[in-house]
Amino acid sequence: MQIKVVENVLAANDAIAAQNRETLKRSGVIALNVMGSPGAGKTSLVEQTIRLLGQRLRPAVIEGDIATRYDAERVAALGAPVVHIATGGECHLDAPMVGQGLANLDLANADVVLIENVGNLVCPAEYDLGETAKVVVTSVPEGDDKVEKYPLMFRIADAVVINKLDTMPSFTYDLDRVRARLLDLNPNAVSFALSCATGQGLDAWAEWVAARAAT
Amino acid sequence: MQIKVVENVLAANDAIAAQNRETLKRSGVIALNVMGSPGAGKTSLVEQTIRLLGQRLRPAVIEGDIATRYDAERVAALGAPVVHIATGGECHLDAPMVGQGLANLDLANADVVLIENVGNLVCPAEYDLGETAKVVVTSVPEGDDKVEKYPLMFRIADAVVINKLDTMPSFTYDLDRVRARLLDLNPNAVSFALSCATGQGLDAWAEWVAARAAT
Repeated sequence: MQIKVVENVLAANDAIAAQNRETLKRSGVIALNVMGSPGAGKTSLVEQTIRLLGQRLRPAVIEGDIATRYDAERVAALGAPVVHIATGGECHLDAPMVGQGLANLDLANADVVLIENVGNLVCPAEYDLGETAKVVVTSVPEGDDKVEKYPLMFRIADAVVINKLDTMPSFTYDLDRVRARLLDLNPNAVSFALSCATGQGLDAWAEWVAARAAT
Repeated sequence: MQIKVVENVLAANDAIAAQNRETLKRSGVIALNVMGSPGAGKTSLVEQTIRLLGQRLRPAVIEGDIATRYDAERVAALGAPVVHIATGGECHLDAPMVGQGLANLDLANADVVLIENVGNLVCPAEYDLGETAKVVVTSVPEGDDKVEKYPLMFRIADAVVINKLDTMPSFTYDLDRVRARLLDLNPNAVSFALSCATGQGLDAWAEWVAARAAT
């Protein structure tokens, strides 16, 4: 009985996700669902993507948060259109929330929507938002065992960003191990080791986003 | 309808949590529910607590993980009795899981059970496990806005551990801000700024655990 209810919730979500996908396609806009642990650097990645691509593409942002508008304010300070979604305690964004977000953006004047999900390496993986691609941000200080410990999130990723590369000297982190485990689990995922703090490695990421937007 | 189902799930959880609490009380054992983001240092804190208190108290451990036994293996290597709970994708431990864990520990020969929850700063906050105290581990690399952004977790905490203090030079982290926000949100919580890597600040934490076990 309980499982049935959950299935209904997910089926309802997927129906709205399909609508979101259609809205994006009709508008010629791509959307990236940016997920990861609290503090992995999702907002920093959104900020840097706007800085790097803001001249070539027209970015817009949907910021999902349980509480506070801090992330939306950080993004708004860069001049990008941003819709803040307060999840009201919910541990993830869902397709109806993102549908509302898209309805409040001027998609005719956008090329890429960066959707920042709630900081959570588990639950957001279960919800299709209608996005073009799923991006998982993990970071060096979190440790190099996260791909194996939170496999669903990394299995569904189209791209994995390994952030805070500049802090490698302060932590024991085996980058080759992370890449090898990711290759085992999800050979189709591309990965980018970078630092949003120093800018190292960001160009390759930005080119990947630009290439997605061009197709 | 959906809300009703969730309420039933939580009511069922709370009934088992009350049983767990009774089991612990009868055995004269305390249990700490250790929660926090992936990579905050929960396992490291469990390891260091065993090292520091293992001569004075008899620790036992329940390790909750979505996948892998890495954390249970790390704790077992220290000689502490450990029960591994695979949540099977679930984003949090619940009271029935912990009840099974307690049933598989020799509580007559234990003083403190360290329960390591799934890495998640959201969902575990909603589930009473029957624990004696709730401990939230956050860490410097995660950023100093986490108390405000994930308020439920910090509101229910009895103790907040701010870990990876040794990495302060690599990050922008205002420790006073974190403490001020915690005081606003939850004036009853005690906080410990420490480093499981260097040992700095661990003594005060260990004394707090020992004092809880003595009451």
